[in-house]
Amino acid sequence: MRTRAAVALEAGKPLEVMEVNLEGPKAGEVLVEIKATGICHTDEFTLSGADPEGMFPAILGHEGAGVVVECGPGVTSLKPGDHVIPLYTPECRECEYCLNPKTNLCQSIRSTQGQGLMPDGTSRFSMLDGTPILHYMGCSTFANHTVLPEIALAKVRKDAPFDKICYIGCGVTTGIGAVINTAKVEIGSRAIVFGLGGIGLNVIQGLRLAGADQIVGVDLNDSKVPMAKQFGMTDFVNPTEVSGDLVGHLVELTGGGADYTFDATGNVDVMRTALESAHKGWGESVIIGVAPAGAEISTRPFQLVTGRVWRGTAFGGASGRTDVPKIVDWYMDGKIEIDPMITHTMPLDDINKGFDLMHAGKSIRSVVLY
Amino acid sequence: MRTRAAVALEAGKPLEVMEVNLEGPKAGEVLVEIKATGICHTDEFTLSGADPEGMFPAILGHEGAGVVVECGPGVTSLKPGDHVIPLYTPECRECEYCLNPKTNLCQSIRSTQGQGLMPDGTSRFSMLDGTPILHYMGCSTFANHTVLPEIALAKVRKDAPFDKICYIGCGVTTGIGAVINTAKVEIGSRAIVFGLGGIGLNVIQGLRLAGADQIVGVDLNDSKVPMAKQFGMTDFVNPTEVSGDLVGHLVELTGGGADYTFDATGNVDVMRTALESAHKGWGESVIIGVAPAGAEISTRPFQLVTGRVWRGTAFGGASGRTDVPKIVDWYMDGKIEIDPMITHTMPLDDINKGFDLMHAGKSIRSVVLY
Ligand SMILES: NC(=O)c1ccc[n+]([C@@H]2O[C@H](COP(=O)([O-])OP(=O)(O)OC[C@H]3O[C@@H](n4cnc5c(N)ncnc54)[C@H](O)[C@@H]3O)[C@@H](O)[C@H]2O)c1
Ligand SMILES: NC(=O)c1ccc[n+]([C@@H]2O[C@H](COP(=O)([O-])OP(=O)(O)OC[C@H]3O[C@@H](n4cnc5c(N)ncnc54)[C@H](O)[C@@H]3O)[C@@H](O)[C@H]2O)c1
Repeated sequence: MRTRAAVALEAGKPLEVMEVNLEGPKAGEVLVEIKATGICHTDEFTLSGADPEGMFPAILGHEGAGVVVECGPGVTSLKPGDHVIPLYTPECRECEYCLNPKTNLCQSIRSTQGQGLMPDGTSRFSMLDGTPILHYMGCSTFANHTVLPEIALAKVRKDAPFDKICYIGCGVTTGIGAVINTAKVEIGSRAIVFGLGGIGLNVIQGLRLAGADQIVGVDLNDSKVPMAKQFGMTDFVNPTEVSGDLVGHLVELTGGGADYTFDATGNVDVMRTALESAHKGWGESVIIGVAPAGAEISTRPFQLVTGRVWRGTAFGGASGRTDVPKIVDWYMDGKIEIDPMITHTMPLDDINKGFDLMHAGKSIRSVVLY
Repeated sequence: MRTRAAVALEAGKPLEVMEVNLEGPKAGEVLVEIKATGICHTDEFTLSGADPEGMFPAILGHEGAGVVVECGPGVTSLKPGDHVIPLYTPECRECEYCLNPKTNLCQSIRSTQGQGLMPDGTSRFSMLDGTPILHYMGCSTFANHTVLPEIALAKVRKDAPFDKICYIGCGVTTGIGAVINTAKVEIGSRAIVFGLGGIGLNVIQGLRLAGADQIVGVDLNDSKVPMAKQFGMTDFVNPTEVSGDLVGHLVELTGGGADYTFDATGNVDVMRTALESAHKGWGESVIIGVAPAGAEISTRPFQLVTGRVWRGTAFGGASGRTDVPKIVDWYMDGKIEIDPMITHTMPLDDINKGFDLMHAGKSIRSVVLY
């Protein structure tokens, strides 16, 4: 079949919206009509050329929601008409990782996914002249139709709006999951969130959901404050307005350091500040942000010997097929908010405007509606 | 009263054995006759002058065992004749830290202890000419008699030999506790221990006790192998004999990385290797070693984002008054071994020989018998 897609032809160039060929699903695969997709920093990281693993031409996008059109042979858990959210971290429920409750990093299709290919080692997308186009993060939601492995699709309820729940495919789950699955924040905790962008806001609402008593937000940009307050931030710190040591200031503000701190900036110096402003004896710091290639974190080991713990999280520690449908329920039940974070929507033809808004820091999330 | 002690008069000089004055116990304090004391790297670190917080003159030593001689007013949990192990990490059971099950770092007397003083801000030791002598780590077990706060004494059974259980005051508890309290190693785990000295051997026997399936030891010194095997090491790696990448070698040897890794060297490069040889998705690395002043650990944050956890431990995460008596029981019941690690004993007059043996790498533990 043919479908319309925004294709990344080369690093550093705008996407080009065009007709492409899409082969139907093979065994264990599913054809999905994408109804909406968010534009995330990771797409921009790859498109910019900064991602050392980026490959072109490719169809980017990994934060979508849509409807099953056709199932390949052997698919048992989905049928045409089901509503689904694509998962860049699949859940096969059979590999060593899926069977270990300490991790969500299913490895069953990792090597082909990392090469931009389906599990059989080929691509379903091609240019009209036949040139193959790579998949991206196993999702490629910047195409109106895409093919995914069955294990990379979370089946969700049909009354949930695509233009909102697409965000659960990455940002919402990453932020809320970092709190609930990775840090396992307890009621009454004190927390600090560094970076109040699309991820940080979801960390904040995760903390509110988990019953945290103090939720300190840290950002260089004061314009982030109203939205962060709306999501549950109790205190705000702009590092440029702190005279003296930022760690000391945060330790004092939290009465000895925070029980949990989160980096949602991707800046390695901020990651260090986050660790060191965690409470002596028990404070845990969770890295969510993705650092530039080659950048390293560091600290004195004494910080750990005196009881701080340093962790990271990918996709919020969520096992997608199991956890994503629950987060959709939380949204539909009003336990979490998504609508205010979707600051812009646009048709596929205008997708590059979404990237422009991100660069200008004007959007929390732009969503493309097909 | 007067007692005999090995006094550290200045950094970098041998200890001087002499008579000193010792005031009796004040409220909440206990006079203890020390029967035996180990010589630990931390004593040597301070004596050498490398410890930026070292102060002189002081009576070092923090790995002792002895008998209660006299209790000051208000002491309720101990009486003369009780056998005790001094605790450099006390357990008041009342402070915010003691009441938090996530930490053992009781803070109730921390600031005075750090200054070499009793909780009332004074010292009980002085030279015969009246010059005050500082306490050390709240213990000063290099004196035949010493005064400690009640909360810094673990009461232990009377049939346990002082010349062996003194080692439980630091090394044994640190190594075994790192496994049991800090890492919480599960049956069947795979582990790597870096450094097969007095701490590393106790990590190894902690792993055996916890039911680990694979216990890899890593040391530059092949002479450590026989003892490490005796304590439970299943595989040995000498980094100087590995051609190529040590992390890659260890990951392969452990079938994808270890579930738990431990640094017992104090070398920050080793700490990084320990983290990176932990298993993707769930491997945890515990820092036990004390690094030189100013040294920093570093790694790419991706190591944590893909599921590794970086922790540290002090006194093996043990709450001394609660846990040390249990470890003494384990020793008496034959669950753990201590005797082979006590490679040398000597009278107080020969204490400097114990430091010489340590420098020469000839001893695991030297114990001074009073
Ligand atoms: N681990 C995962 O699974 C995962 C998933 C998605 C995104 N991410 C990463 O999370 C990070 C945040 O993503 P986002 O979409 O929220 O980005 P964003 O750009 O919307 O937000 C980042 C925020 O950090 C603030 N900031 C930048 N430098 C700062 C500093 N030095 N101190 C304080 N605040 C600072 C910015 O002002 C901005 O508000 C990115 O690195 C992204 O790649 C990780
Ligand atoms: N965290 C705590 O509560 C605590 C308590 C006691 C001791 N410690 C620390 O634990 C560390 C170990 O103490 P110890 O008494 O066992 O010391 P040790 O000197 O007896 O043993 C250290 C071992 O590490 C080996 N080693 C050195 N460099 C190495 C390298 N690059 N790679 C592999 N092996 C290497 C040595 O050959 C030696 O066998 C010290 O740093 C000590 O200060 C910490």
